[in-house]
Amino acid sequence: MKIIITAVPGCGKTTVLNFLKKHAEEDKKNVVFANFGDYMFEEAKKRGLAEHRDGMRPLPKNVQEELQLAAAKKISEITGSVIIDTHASIKTRFGYWSGLPESILKILKPDVIISLEKDPQIILEKRAGDKEREKIGARDKETAEEIDLHQKINRAFVIAYAALVGAAVKIVEAKGEETEPLGHAKQAARKIWDDLKDSI
Amino acid sequence: MKIIITAVPGCGKTTVLNFLKKHAEEDKKNVVFANFGDYMFEEAKKRGLAEHRDGMRPLPKNVQEELQLAAAKKISEITGSVIIDTHASIKTRFGYWSGLPESILKILKPDVIISLEKDPQIILEKRAGDKEREKIGARDKETAEEIDLHQKINRAFVIAYAALVGAAVKIVEAKGEETEPLGHAKQAARKIWDDLKDSI
Amino acid sequence: MKIIITAVPGCGKTTVLNFLKKHAEEDKKNVVFANFGDYMFEEAKKRGLAEHRDGMRPLPKNVQEELQLAAAKKISEITGSVIIDTHASIKTRFGYWSGLPESILKILKPDVIISLEKDPQIILEKRAGDKEREKIGARDKETAEEIDLHQKINRAFVIAYAALVGAAVKIVEAKGEETEPLGHAKQAARKIWDDLKDSI
Repeated sequence: MKIIITAVPGCGKTTVLNFLKKHAEEDKKNVVFANFGDYMFEEAKKRGLAEHRDGMRPLPKNVQEELQLAAAKKISEITGSVIIDTHASIKTRFGYWSGLPESILKILKPDVIISLEKDPQIILEKRAGDKEREKIGARDKETAEEIDLHQKINRAFVIAYAALVGAAVKIVEAKGEETEPLGHAKQAARKIWDDLKDSI
Repeated sequence: MKIIITAVPGCGKTTVLNFLKKHAEEDKKNVVFANFGDYMFEEAKKRGLAEHRDGMRPLPKNVQEELQLAAAKKISEITGSVIIDTHASIKTRFGYWSGLPESILKILKPDVIISLEKDPQIILEKRAGDKEREKIGARDKETAEEIDLHQKINRAFVIAYAALVGAAVKIVEAKGEETEPLGHAKQAARKIWDDLKDSI
Repeated sequence: MKIIITAVPGCGKTTVLNFLKKHAEEDKKNVVFANFGDYMFEEAKKRGLAEHRDGMRPLPKNVQEELQLAAAKKISEITGSVIIDTHASIKTRFGYWSGLPESILKILKPDVIISLEKDPQIILEKRAGDKEREKIGARDKETAEEIDLHQKINRAFVIAYAALVGAAVKIVEAKGEETEPLGHAKQAARKIWDDLKDSI
């Protein structure tokens, strides 16, 4: 089964993925975790286009699209179950750029596209405490309203993607207060794993 | 004209279709009413895969997709106007599964895709009183919030479908209290018929 | 760069386009402004199908689709940057008709699709004061709620379009009171121009 997992930055996707890796280990399930950006970067390095991930940002659009295609082909060669970590859309000054256009989707052929969602206010707080992100600069600072909009846009994107390839859209929302550290991510991973593990 | 009509369970779609059949008879319009699931089941029976409609549920995804394709081809052979009864998405543990992926849509070539919508609370009450559904079990019981989400998801799905084939999306909402038995369904069918009959 | 700009009627799109033309002149940028309907009408005139733009309305759907295709091909031949003025969806009695189905999009190959949006109440007031539109008749009169719905539908449409061709969706909302005549349009054009001019 091919699963794509998407979320806006600060939603805790990496933490959810770490919990999913633990579940896979515990249940002795063979599943490859593929970070789409890592595959793009590998390709960029091979072609001498970038030496670190951020070095891909200034590349022209058509080059980025070539890297996306190469990454998708590489991931499509993985046999068995794959969980692909990527973005439904990327916010740029041009607008919300489709992270999974038809050309890419038809190579990846996902069965399930997960949209991880969270209260924008919690995302905002997470981002505020995120030193790494702060270094990138104030340019990326969004209001709760803007995060909410990005999440709504992403939801429409994943549905359009599912229509293109006949996939299922799984909305996983973190709700309420966290009752333990990383509680939201733990719950989200538990839900995803319980629902999908039999097909992995 | 090819018309697809979709709704979440409990929205009264079957009743609306019955009123539409009456209108077609009264106005002596030739229109075939095709239930997509019936066509899939016919195909499944022919292939010895299922003896009743629920028998299709446990079939693997790729077999279900073959049945969908076969059903779509069969329906596409109908000459003249057709009203196709199906789902925008089906709620499963994998998420909201696209009911009309591109592969199916490009065979059906709909001109109009209708999304029948209703106050989630009314749908909930309808479902509660629906003995048939109760037998299926508590597993299918949803909250009003979940029904609302499913309707929103479906709306985005039908718009994505329309973008794929250049169709029109017709939102038909039942509003307010019913002033007579089956009033909502009667009004919805009246509206659909008045708007579309000249092209049927 | 190919940019498509969309909005519901009365949103001030023409005014925004006029400001964009001024910006292009001031910054000595070569960009062609293409009105999709004008290109369709040119084609209809050439084929003897219509003598004025409204004359295209009663043409059968398949003829309109041919005109759309011809217009798209013509616009795709323009070299350099183009800003295409068209509709995300057109409201008809059949529903919201897709203005940019896949067949058209794959010819136009837009990089950015702009959705111009505004408070429905302001659109309503604009429409009420619009003599031109009043002549067309009461049939087109919508409530604020209906305008709001149309804008929501359009947003889902442009996202589905972006998924099809790997474009970016740019939401440009006019907010608050206008502080000067045409203030909203001026601000929207300024924002669009500042964000996109380096790629034009």
